[in-house]
Order: sequence, then structure tokens, then C-alpha cells
Amino acid sequence: MRTSVLMFLMLAPVSLFAGELPNLPSSGELNLMPWPSRCTVGSGQLLVTGSFSAALTGYKEARLEKGVQRFFRDLSRQTGIVFSSQLAEPEKATLIVHTEGPSKEIQEPGEDESYSLEVAPSGAKLSAPNPLGVLHGLQTLLQLVEPTRAGFAAPVISIQDAPRFPWRGLMVDVGRHFIPLDVLRRNLDGMAALKLNVFHWHLSEDQGFRVESKKFPRLHEMGSDGSFYTQDEIREFIAYARDRGIRVVPEFDMPGHTTAWLVGYPQLAAAPGPYNVERKWGVFDPAMDPTRDSVYKFLDDFIGEMSQLFPDPYFHVGGDEVNGKQWSRNSSIHQFMVQHNLRSSQELQAYFTGRIQKIVSNHAKVMVGWDEILVPGMPQDIVIQSWRGTDALASAVEQGHFGLLSNGYYLDLMWSAFRHYAVDPLPKEAGGLTTEEKAKILGGEATMWNEYASPENFDSRVWPRLAPIAERLWSAADVRDVQAMYGRLSKISWRLETLGLTHNSSYEPMLKRIAPTADVAPLRILADVVEPVKEYQREELAKAVPTSLSPLNRLVDAVHPESDVARRFSTQVDHLIAGGCKDAVERERIRNQLVIWQNNAANLQPLINNSSLLQEVSSISQNLSRVGALGLQALDYIEQSQRPADSWKNDRVSELEKMEQPSSAQLLLMVIEPVQRLVDASATVCGGTS
Amino acid sequence: MRTSVLMFLMLAPVSLFAGELPNLPSSGELNLMPWPSRCTVGSGQLLVTGSFSAALTGYKEARLEKGVQRFFRDLSRQTGIVFSSQLAEPEKATLIVHTEGPSKEIQEPGEDESYSLEVAPSGAKLSAPNPLGVLHGLQTLLQLVEPTRAGFAAPVISIQDAPRFPWRGLMVDVGRHFIPLDVLRRNLDGMAALKLNVFHWHLSEDQGFRVESKKFPRLHEMGSDGSFYTQDEIREFIAYARDRGIRVVPEFDMPGHTTAWLVGYPQLAAAPGPYNVERKWGVFDPAMDPTRDSVYKFLDDFIGEMSQLFPDPYFHVGGDEVNGKQWSRNSSIHQFMVQHNLRSSQELQAYFTGRIQKIVSNHAKVMVGWDEILVPGMPQDIVIQSWRGTDALASAVEQGHFGLLSNGYYLDLMWSAFRHYAVDPLPKEAGGLTTEEKAKILGGEATMWNEYASPENFDSRVWPRLAPIAERLWSAADVRDVQAMYGRLSKISWRLETLGLTHNSSYEPMLKRIAPTADVAPLRILADVVEPVKEYQREELAKAVPTSLSPLNRLVDAVHPESDVARRFSTQVDHLIAGGCKDAVERERIRNQLVIWQNNAANLQPLINNSSLLQEVSSISQNLSRVGALGLQALDYIEQSQRPADSWKNDRVSELEKMEQPSSAQLLLMVIEPVQRLVDASATVCGGTS
Repeated sequence: MRTSVLMFLMLAPVSLFAGELPNLPSSGELNLMPWPSRCTVGSGQLLVTGSFSAALTGYKEARLEKGVQRFFRDLSRQTGIVFSSQLAEPEKATLIVHTEGPSKEIQEPGEDESYSLEVAPSGAKLSAPNPLGVLHGLQTLLQLVEPTRAGFAAPVISIQDAPRFPWRGLMVDVGRHFIPLDVLRRNLDGMAALKLNVFHWHLSEDQGFRVESKKFPRLHEMGSDGSFYTQDEIREFIAYARDRGIRVVPEFDMPGHTTAWLVGYPQLAAAPGPYNVERKWGVFDPAMDPTRDSVYKFLDDFIGEMSQLFPDPYFHVGGDEVNGKQWSRNSSIHQFMVQHNLRSSQELQAYFTGRIQKIVSNHAKVMVGWDEILVPGMPQDIVIQSWRGTDALASAVEQGHFGLLSNGYYLDLMWSAFRHYAVDPLPKEAGGLTTEEKAKILGGEATMWNEYASPENFDSRVWPRLAPIAERLWSAADVRDVQAMYGRLSKISWRLETLGLTHNSSYEPMLKRIAPTADVAPLRILADVVEPVKEYQREELAKAVPTSLSPLNRLVDAVHPESDVARRFSTQVDHLIAGGCKDAVERERIRNQLVIWQNNAANLQPLINNSSLLQEVSSISQNLSRVGALGLQALDYIEQSQRPADSWKNDRVSELEKMEQPSSAQLLLMVIEPVQRLVDASATVCGGTS
Repeated sequence: MRTSVLMFLMLAPVSLFAGELPNLPSSGELNLMPWPSRCTVGSGQLLVTGSFSAALTGYKEARLEKGVQRFFRDLSRQTGIVFSSQLAEPEKATLIVHTEGPSKEIQEPGEDESYSLEVAPSGAKLSAPNPLGVLHGLQTLLQLVEPTRAGFAAPVISIQDAPRFPWRGLMVDVGRHFIPLDVLRRNLDGMAALKLNVFHWHLSEDQGFRVESKKFPRLHEMGSDGSFYTQDEIREFIAYARDRGIRVVPEFDMPGHTTAWLVGYPQLAAAPGPYNVERKWGVFDPAMDPTRDSVYKFLDDFIGEMSQLFPDPYFHVGGDEVNGKQWSRNSSIHQFMVQHNLRSSQELQAYFTGRIQKIVSNHAKVMVGWDEILVPGMPQDIVIQSWRGTDALASAVEQGHFGLLSNGYYLDLMWSAFRHYAVDPLPKEAGGLTTEEKAKILGGEATMWNEYASPENFDSRVWPRLAPIAERLWSAADVRDVQAMYGRLSKISWRLETLGLTHNSSYEPMLKRIAPTADVAPLRILADVVEPVKEYQREELAKAVPTSLSPLNRLVDAVHPESDVARRFSTQVDHLIAGGCKDAVERERIRNQLVIWQNNAANLQPLINNSSLLQEVSSISQNLSRVGALGLQALDYIEQSQRPADSWKNDRVSELEKMEQPSSAQLLLMVIEPVQRLVDASATVCGGTS
């Protein structure tokens, strides 16, 4: 099986339409994400009414029927129109769905996911070589339906579409915080809407082992605090994913990040134990002992059990962040290293990886791992998932392996959608790679490490920022207009809510909890313009050591990773300054906003006085008001055609700079920077002559 | 079994604390709903931190463990704090949960649901005679935990609590619109939070037959449009309800409201057919033929099958709204009536009901039905559910039967929480009933008839208005302060969202769909102050005949049944006028609100121009602006101490009256009436002397 998968991968073109220039999206146009390979818009539209019906022609299977039923359910959620859930005869159907043949029984990367969609005023036709393309095409049609003056309708359009990369994934860490299946299922729905096709399930961590093992029950019994998935649940989840064209790749991280395994099975460790489930975050010493055959026997049995449970041809063994301390302190390990001529913990890990690879391979799976598993002697078919970056990725494919990019797609680092959107698994600079090497870069995966995500705010940490990453992995490389992306993203974001995701709707309930009052408006005004600190600053700024038991109920846990209000304000300021500050309407809009901010601290203070969760935001609330006041001063100078003294400008700019330093509230005030530009402009390009 | 249930009911006291004066809730105090029988607040509080733990003592069973696990899950959702899901040793636990013994294996009305809860600064103790009381007490404790200056905490308190009525239900009509199980499950969660204990499942209607029948599969195959619950799903749902202390009472409405049965089994009907699933709303002619033994044979088999599926001792047979037309047109039925001396269709239905009662009784169930089943000759143990009112109810219990009130609790009529809250199954006027007769009034059920509810807006049609009904059925009769109720309700409403209900969070996505724009603020300003028309006005005002296929995507489907904004504005106006309009702060608040409304039509118009769904609200949007303008004129008179001419006042009042007439948008503008009062006051109590 392994060979056939990979042969197919090698032969699959990077894009079915490579070489043709794709249409590029522009702002305010079609609401499609990811943008399709080719689309031609005609005139007129197909009205969507309660009589809209669908028929299947060609190859048929249950997954297609279920896909069409979901299409109607989602179309109904999206429009509020009730449809018959029964399939129609082809001659009577509004939508013909034609499938040429089956896809693989067990979904594989590199299968043909293309489809074509023709929408005319009288009906639509969706055609695809196999069910995978049909599922994608149905999502495209859902996105095309919008409210218009005449009612809900899809525009007349012709679309031919296929993905740029065959592996488009989301990794979810359920070790650090357990995420229940209902939350994961709605995220699969969101993934399917964005044409993502790999759910990478990071199932074991120092902080939790999350899968029922029948062979080694102390893994989940002692390593999970009671929060794990049963094997029946996992089988159901995989079927749910397959129905949506999504593969489920399990990851069991080893030999490090394994504390939770060692609670029940300390004999696997390189030091005696006993072990407890880890509560803190970071890289810890516990690691498996790579020198004992009993460890490999255990892992062979365990991987055998899990290989049966997870049908995907790939099996992820982690391999990241082993600090080697337990190994270097253990004299028998030291002796083993001398005997085997292993000169460092890296070389010892390479030995471990080599043996694990053989075990994985014996269970008919292809091994996937993080950068660390890339060591000499590995077979070509392994897949390197790079947290290090595109250089490491290039090096992997140059050595003949396959590669996946995750560096730049870490959702937990709280980057903007824009920043993720710019990251490309195959950037223009990768020109040095041969065509064959490029084809070995299979795509990428967004990663969601769950130090600071709970079932409540998980969705808002993932969405909507996952959508532009999905577009990067599906659409042509030159689909990269940022304004157009944001325009489409805001619509997609709300549409995802109708699928059951809660990234927008969880916001107000969390604010209502933080501020026990009927009217949270002042808190919302502040919350709308702050973002959580970026990268790993949250750890650095923490007052107390954060653990897996720390409440995730603070403002930093509730606010969106990216502030739409601040981004729009910043665009308005740019626009104003670009026009020499002459646009009175824009000035008025900015002034209204600044006045609200200036007044907000006074309104928010009574709420702060009343809630322990708000004490920490007192100073950032004051800062917002001060930012509003300074912006208004700058605007006054501009409107009165006065040029402020340079000293005023310099003092204000440095005052604002100081406010950019985050405190233990771990929040960034995102409107400082545009106000700095306004202050600067008042004394320069927009300054009067006084 | 039947006798024991009813003996118990007869013996159960109406309230365990009857005769004692309960504490009454006041505004802004404890966030408890339903208000408990007795509570005494002490000083100090119990802080809730991550080390909060619980232990079970006394009688133990899985339902208790699951209940405690849910308690922690909900406490976590409510506070964002992570708790260990494992039970603690009693000596170490923050919360001791003591259960004296088991409740009935199959839950029955009248079981002891009491509990006592003691919260001290060092810990809490919950005690109850059986698991039902424990489940209720855990909900009370959840409600007590609130954010405070010091962190999340419950106040020191002593509570003894028991329900006033043993039957506190919600009826859900899944026939007219199918409601999926995930939506129903989250509503069970909401019911449990409000201590409701009966889910009455209205499973068959002219528009749909919703249960899989293995004996008569054409019932669900041909009568459901593919939307039905399998028997496995129903068993799981009943177990889910039982875990939450909720009984599931099935209703199969007969002999009328049965069109969907007749699609697959036309031989049951009093006219030949063929039949199609009904799409319209109303009372239709099709009815079962009460004169044929084959019909009773069928129903005996069917009721037998369903009696096995639904373990509850009660079985609801509907019985409402038979128009008798098919019967009077059928000559053999006419002949039967003559032979049996049945002089009207009512008497024929009484004959039918008598035979059905015997069938139900043979299957060891107690029959429940709507008022119509109350006919001479019925055994005493039947339960009459009254849609007609308390007089009909009194008559039922005077005849020795049991009674449930639903009149006044029809959620689909879009009444205010206040109006439902005032309805009492045992009003003071019922003084004529003996104590024994009063005890036969078991309680009540809110009913949700689903002509205009979809999975999307179902929650918002039920919540939060179900909460005050739940309080009426649990708490003492003199717990009826409306301001205090609304104060607690606004907190409870948001807390219910954390359980997964979507009555608040579905609002903005629906508005975003109606108005395809990034900023729906102007639509929200309008939507916040309108309500759907009341009673059955929606049918009367419809432009086209509404059906089960009509989209439920209009503004009337999105807006809340009760406008909080309008209610608060009305209170402000009352307050202002009561003070002779001298309160400048209140005047300013009212002015700000009126200015926003006055300006809104201009802001909303571009959105209206762009969406077919908004065309119909153009005139009500204009009305809102005019209401704002008139209110501002009145406020100007008041502030300038001028008394307007009577003619001005009369013209304005009649102009406002005209705006109260709803149009085909089926919306009521709820701020007209307070502005009328303001206009009137400007010329009377608050008028100057000019």
C-alpha cells in the first residue's frame, strides 16, 4: 500500500491547471475562499427557493448522498429556506451532481480532488472524477449563494478547480487541554467548508494521554485525568471526517513529551520515576529509554493497536524537543551509547527514530515526524513536518523525503491572518528546487497548540485565521491580495458560525462573565481593540507560573487573536493621511471613534471595581482613553491647519511607544500605532503652517 | 404500577414547606431561578478556585457521578476555571453531596425532589433524600457562583428547597417542523438548569410523523419527509433526560391531527384518501375512523410498541381539535353512530377516547390528553392537559381526574415573560377547590408549537421565557415580583448560553444573513426594538399562505419574542414621568436613545435597498425614526418648560396609534407606547405653563 500511495503522489501534478493564469479575486466580489483555480462569471443568477432540488448521476455511494443532505442542511442554515431532503430525478433537479467513479476506500494524499461547477439561471451542474471533488464543489456552491435584491441566489459562473497542494491540514493538540469531540466535530465542518483535508490529531503529551488503549489501559486510565476518547468514539470521529473528505492522522509524540505515558508505565522511561501528569508548559526531562528492547516491544504492540484503530496510511511519531537530560544522567544509557558509537543525544534519538520507523513500516504505515526525525539512513518515503521553516523543508525534499510546512502556521502564536497568509510552503525563493523536489512538498498544516485554549475559546483561536491558511494551501500562489482576502474573510467568518462554530458567538458570553453587569458595552469597546500578546510572550509576562489548571477566563482568553476594529481603524487612518488629511468624512469617522475611546475608561471603571477578572485591565483601559485623547489633539491640529511643535509630536510619540509595552494582562492595544501615525502626520504631511 | 404512582401523588404534599412564608427575591440580589422555598443568607463567601472538589456520601449510583461531572463541566464553562473531574475523599472535598437513597428506577411524578444546601466559607454540603434532589441542588449551587471582587464565589447561605408542583414540563411539537436531537438535548440541559422535570414530546402531526415504528414502518417512511428519530436515538435521548431528572412523555395525537399517519396507512382514515403530508397550518379534516375494529387493532399494536420504547408511566394521546367533517360525510360512520346512540362528533370522539383509554391502560400506562378527552365514564387516573384554562382544569379535578395547565404557557404566542409569569395553575381564585382537588393539579407545561420555529431559532422562541414559567411551577405562589424576576432573568439567560443554548447568540448571525453587509448595526438598532406579532396574528397578516416549506429567515424570525431594549426604555420613561420629568440624567439617557432611533432609518436604507429580505421592513424603519423624532419633540417641550397645545398632543398620539398597526412584516414596534406616554406627559404632568 505504501508504495502505491507514494507513486501516485509523485505523479500528481502540483495543480491541474498549472501554467494557466488563474483569475485573481478582488475586494467585494465573489465570496469564495479558497479562491478557485479558474472562474468565469457570466450575467444573471440562479435563484435559490424552496423548490431547489438535487440529483446524483454517474457513480453513487452513501457518502455522496450524505454530502448532498449536508449541502441542503447547510444551505437551509445559510438561507433559512426549508428544502426537501429527498433526492430528485435528474430531469427535474435544479442541481445535477455527476461523479465519475469512486475514490480510494481509505483516503490518500494526492487523490484527484478536482471538480467543475457550472451555474446557469436555470440550474447548476457539478462534476468531479470522484466523491472528493464533489464534496469540495458543494462547498463552493454554498459559498456562491448570497442574499440579493431578488432573493438568495448564486451568480451565473463557470468554475474549474483543483488544489495546489495535496495535504492541507490542521493539527490539534488535545494533550495540553482536552478538547471534547463535539468541539472537534464542528471544526471538521469548518475544515470541510474551507476544503482542508487532513485532521492531524496530536493525542499524547506530557500533560495528557488521550486515547483508550485496550492493550495498555494504564495509558489513558492514569495519564488522562479521566479525559480521553474511547476507541468507539474515535472510529465514529474518523467516519465523520471521511464523510467530509478529511483524513485523520494520529500523532503519538515520542521519545520526549511522554510524561503522561510514564505515569502508568514508568518502565518505559530513562529514569525510575514515579511520574505524575505534567501541569506546567515547556520542554521537560522525561523521555523513553531508547536503549531497551522492552521499550520497542511495548511500542510495537502499541503502534500495532493504534495502526488498526486509525486507518490512515500515515502515522505521526512526533520526535520533537527531546532535551536529553534523562539520557545523559543514566549510566547504562551512557554505556549503550559508547557501545553503539552514538556521540550525542541527537545521535541516540536518531537510533531510536530508526527503530521506530521500522516498527511503523512493519505495521504498513508511512512515518511522519517533526524536523528532528530527519536523520541519515531514513527511507525516502517518510514525511517531515517542519516547525523550523522552508529551509529545513527544502533540505528534507533535497534528501528525497516528503515535506509539510507548519512553521508560519502556528495559530497559537496569535499572528494576524495577513501574516499567516504570506507564508507559502513553496515560496518563490524555493526556485532552487527541481520540479520533482517541489512535488515532494505536499503542503502544510496549521497547528493549534493548546496551552491557552479550552473548549470554550478553542474555535476563536482557530477561526477565522485558519481560512486564509486554507486558501494558501489550495489556491494558486499568486492569489495573495490582502484587502481582497480580508473582504472575503469577514463574510466567511460569519458563515462558519452557521455551521456551529462559535468563534464569534462565544465572545459576548465570555465578556458577560468577566463583567457581572447587564451592559458590557464599555468592556466590549476595550476588548474590540486589544489582542493577546504574540509568540511566547504570554509565558514571559505571567505573574504566576501558568499550568493546565489555570483558569482560561481572563480578557486575554476572550478577545479575538486579531482585532477587526483596530485593523479597519488603521486602514482609515492610512487612507486619511494618503489624501493629505483632506477627506472630511473620513476625519469625522475617525473623530467619532476617538471620542468613544477617550470616554471609555470612565465608563469601564465601575465594572473594573466590581470584578476580580477586570482588575488587571485597569491600566490598558486608561491607555485607550489617553490614545483617544491624543488622537483627538492631533485631529484638532489637522482641522485647524496648525502644525504642532516638534517637541509636542516627539513627546506624544514616545508616550504612545511606552503604552505599547504589554503588562501582565498580556494584552496589546492595537490602536496605538495608527494614532502614532496620526500624531506624526499632524506635524508633517498634514500639518498646517502655524 | 399505575396505582402506586397515583397513590404517591395523592399523598405528596403540595410543598414540603407549605405553611411557612418563603423568603421573597428582590432585584439585584441572588441570581437564583426558580427561587427556593427557604433561604437564609449569611456573611462571607465560599471562593471557587481550581482546587474546588466534590465527594459523594451515602447512597451512590452512576447518575450521581455523572451529575457531579456535569456540575464541574458547567462550573468550568461558567467560570473558565479548570477542575479535576475525579471525585475526592469526603474529608478533603469542598463540596459534600449526600444522598439518602435511590429514586424510582423509572422516574415518576410526585417523587421527593427536595434538597438542602449549606454553603460556608470553608465548604458546602448538599443533601437530598434521592438523586432527583441532588440534581436540583447542584443547579442551585451553580447559580450561586458569581464573579466578585475577590474572584468567583458563592455566598454563605442555607437553602431548603422543594417544588410546589410535581409536574413541570415543556412540550415540543416536532411535527410541524422537525427539530434535531442536538437542539433538543441542549434544551434538556436548559430545562435541568431551571429544575423542569417533564419533556413532553409531541411526535405526530398532520405535517409529520417523527418516530421510527418497526411494526408500521410506513408511518415514518412516508409520513416524515425523511426527518424522524430512530428508536435507538429515542432510547439514548430518554437516558440523557433521565440523567438530568427529566421524564420523557410521548404524545401521539389522535384521532385528528393525523394526516401524516394516513399517508402510509390510509385504511385508518374515515375517508378513502390518498393522503399527502400536510404543508399548511390549521385544523384539517382527516381523522381516524372510530367505528372500525381494525383501527383499534392497529392502535393497540402501535401503542404497544411505543409503550415499550417510552418507559414513562404516562402516555399522551392528544385528542384535540377534531372537526368531525370526515365523520359526518361517511355514511357507514353515520350508521354506526345511530346504532350506538352517539348524537354528535363529540360523542363519537368520546367513544373513541374510551376505547383508546382501555388500550393505553392495558399497556400499563396512564392516559394523558388535551381537554377534549374529558368525557363521562373516564377512569379517575387520567390526566387532563388544559389548553382551555384554569376553569376547565378545576372542572377536571372536581370530576376526580388529574390536571395540568398549559393555557397561558404557549411560548409560540410570543407573549412577554411577565405575562406568562402571572399565570398560575392554582390561582387564588381557585379557592373553591378542596385540598384534595388542589393536589390533583399536578402542575403545568409550557408548549412550543412549531409553525414558525426552525432548528436555528427554536432556542430563541423557548428561552429565556421558559425560565419564569419554570419558576412559577417550582416556587411559592407569592414569588411574583416582576422587576426582581427580570433582574434575575437577564443573568440566567446569558448563563443558559454557556450550556450550549443559542437564544442570544443566534441573533447576530441571522441579522448578518438578512443584511449582506459588514456592519449590521442599523439593522440591529431596529431589530432590538421590534417583536413578532402576538397570538395568531402572523397567519392573519401573511401575504401568502404560510407552509412548512416557507423560509424562516425573515426579521420576524430573528428578533426576540420580547424586546429587552424596549422594556428598559419603557421603564426609564415611567421613572422620568413619575418624577415629574425633573431627572436630568434620565432625560439625557432617553434623549440619547431617541436620537439614535431618529437617525436610524437613513442608515438602514442602504441595507434595505440591497436585500430582498429587508424590503418589508422599510416602513417600520421609517416609523422608528418618526417615533424618535416625536419623542425628541416631547422632550424639547419638557426641557424648555413649554406646554404643547392639546391639538399637537392629540395629533401626535393618534399618529403614533396608527403606527401600532402591524403590516405584513408581522412586527410590532415596541417603543411606540412609551413615546406616547412621553408625548402625553409633555402636555400634562410634565408640561410647562406657556
